[in-house]
Amino acid sequence: MQLKGKQTWVFDQPPMLLSGAAIGGPEEAKGALKNSFDLLYDNQWVGKESFEKAEQKLQEDAAYLAIKKAGKKPDFFIAGDLQNQIVASNYTARTLDIPFFGLFAACATTMEALSLAALMVNSRAASRVLVAASSHMNSAEKEFRYPNEYGIQKAPTCQRTVTAAGAAMVGYGGDTDVFIPSVTIGRVVDMGITDPTDLGSAMAPAVVDTICAHLRETKSKPEDYDMIVTGDLGQIGQRIALDMLKEKGNYTIEPSKFMDCGLKIYHADQDAFCGGSGAGCVASVTFGYIYNNIRSGIWQKVLVAASGALFSPLTYQQKESIAGISHAVCLQKGGNA
Amino acid sequence: MQLKGKQTWVFDQPPMLLSGAAIGGPEEAKGALKNSFDLLYDNQWVGKESFEKAEQKLQEDAAYLAIKKAGKKPDFFIAGDLQNQIVASNYTARTLDIPFFGLFAACATTMEALSLAALMVNSRAASRVLVAASSHMNSAEKEFRYPNEYGIQKAPTCQRTVTAAGAAMVGYGGDTDVFIPSVTIGRVVDMGITDPTDLGSAMAPAVVDTICAHLRETKSKPEDYDMIVTGDLGQIGQRIALDMLKEKGNYTIEPSKFMDCGLKIYHADQDAFCGGSGAGCVASVTFGYIYNNIRSGIWQKVLVAASGALFSPLTYQQKESIAGISHAVCLQKGGNA
Repeated sequence: MQLKGKQTWVFDQPPMLLSGAAIGGPEEAKGALKNSFDLLYDNQWVGKESFEKAEQKLQEDAAYLAIKKAGKKPDFFIAGDLQNQIVASNYTARTLDIPFFGLFAACATTMEALSLAALMVNSRAASRVLVAASSHMNSAEKEFRYPNEYGIQKAPTCQRTVTAAGAAMVGYGGDTDVFIPSVTIGRVVDMGITDPTDLGSAMAPAVVDTICAHLRETKSKPEDYDMIVTGDLGQIGQRIALDMLKEKGNYTIEPSKFMDCGLKIYHADQDAFCGGSGAGCVASVTFGYIYNNIRSGIWQKVLVAASGALFSPLTYQQKESIAGISHAVCLQKGGNA
Repeated sequence: MQLKGKQTWVFDQPPMLLSGAAIGGPEEAKGALKNSFDLLYDNQWVGKESFEKAEQKLQEDAAYLAIKKAGKKPDFFIAGDLQNQIVASNYTARTLDIPFFGLFAACATTMEALSLAALMVNSRAASRVLVAASSHMNSAEKEFRYPNEYGIQKAPTCQRTVTAAGAAMVGYGGDTDVFIPSVTIGRVVDMGITDPTDLGSAMAPAVVDTICAHLRETKSKPEDYDMIVTGDLGQIGQRIALDMLKEKGNYTIEPSKFMDCGLKIYHADQDAFCGGSGAGCVASVTFGYIYNNIRSGIWQKVLVAASGALFSPLTYQQKESIAGISHAVCLQKGGNA
């Protein structure tokens, strides 16, 4: 394996996605990608006593299903989520009872996890690594903004936290033919935005920074990808990113080849404001919809740049700005990068 | 590199600790290890407007000092802390402006970071990786228990969160002669303890699980180590761990060769109850005191098993039990394991 440029790992023997699993909630069940989910719950409680426990259940479901589909157990588990101290992931790891790496990169967690899993598999530190991430609308709104029960009016720039989890098994020797040829690790980028109801604008510069780094360091062009995916910038953030890619990197990307997981997951009439968000959004869309599209040959090569807004309720109260980070993973049909 | 058993990586070409830095606060300046710190602040504010910002400053100081001592810049930064959404680390990464992996493993973060850094260096994914972790008494007490200003009476089982940060550079080619021959990644272990004023008891089983795995998988005995270090079990947790190591693993460890960072950092009359704790405790003691002792030849081989209590104020309110995790890193003078 090789570090190309400053941020990109190119794997000499690209690890594979051996399986993927996507679990969602009731709003996702009405959404545009409902057929890409393996299981959809009809209410936010998922049979549990709290929304936090419900999120844990979603992540456990995704993890166990990814193991089942791969047909083999993982050596390690890597996961994260948005709850304080990533408790949904910690308690999922407790259930799985295998060595565990806890991560935090907000909604960019899935791609941080996938990057580390690919590194472990490529370097023979593990035969198989399970990755997962999750989010839950009610646990996130309660933590970061106001509990939904308060009925606070939303700003039009808001995004709706997705109730979902995604998991995948990374390893060699499967028959799915979906490979990870390269990954690009992001830097923290902060443009001084302080509005927690407009995270898309706060994260867009980080996404642009990472996509430009990936294209530059792998010596590729936007046209080499069937789809460049962001997760989750929403309407406003995605528009900013498209403009900045042109301005900063001189990359013109066809809007039809530039997809945002948060915009794709819901129908326009679903009252999701600027689109979906949350660590579970890019996780479930990547390990459901995107994975399926590559497996079936609809797409040959996709770059997924997940983005996280780095802040807490406390840093907002202390008037600190919202920083962003984005990690990107290339997924490709067939083993040659 | 090789996965030995189920949890241990043995590095074919052990990466080195090229530098270490430890920064502390006023209580640490009065403590038993004050001479092992590079810089000690005389108040909890560290010149900042909030305790959270003060913690960030400690971590930044440690990071920059570790870079300065190594004399070379890192390719990647890996860090974590106890604040919600690990904001001290995120904002330190913003200042450093290099690709960043955010972690969360509570007080076990330092050893999770060191393990991943060693993997990256050994597999040539990076030339040098900077790791850091931090904690701050006032930001942690405010988040997890009660603000200190309330003057709540402490339970005798409590530990005092250490105001400190530690950082280290991992790579090849330095002259410090301190190597990382192997690391053991922990599982989440939960014995059903629910008392957040007695975290030592909650974490001890995880520490025992990981130390036993390390000894078993590296085919070594406690006598092979000059010191087996825990961080941070405190008085009660350490006693439980010593008993459990005998009972569960049939390992008899000399109490004089079994050190807890939280017990070592303060003098007995410093009112620290069961001892120090916090992600910054094991970080600053490892990259200060322990690192110095190995460099100077006082110790040849040390196993540091850091432990994290996995819970949040919310999971406590919801009556969920406190799970524990422990990651262990072997540090050795000279390159042959």
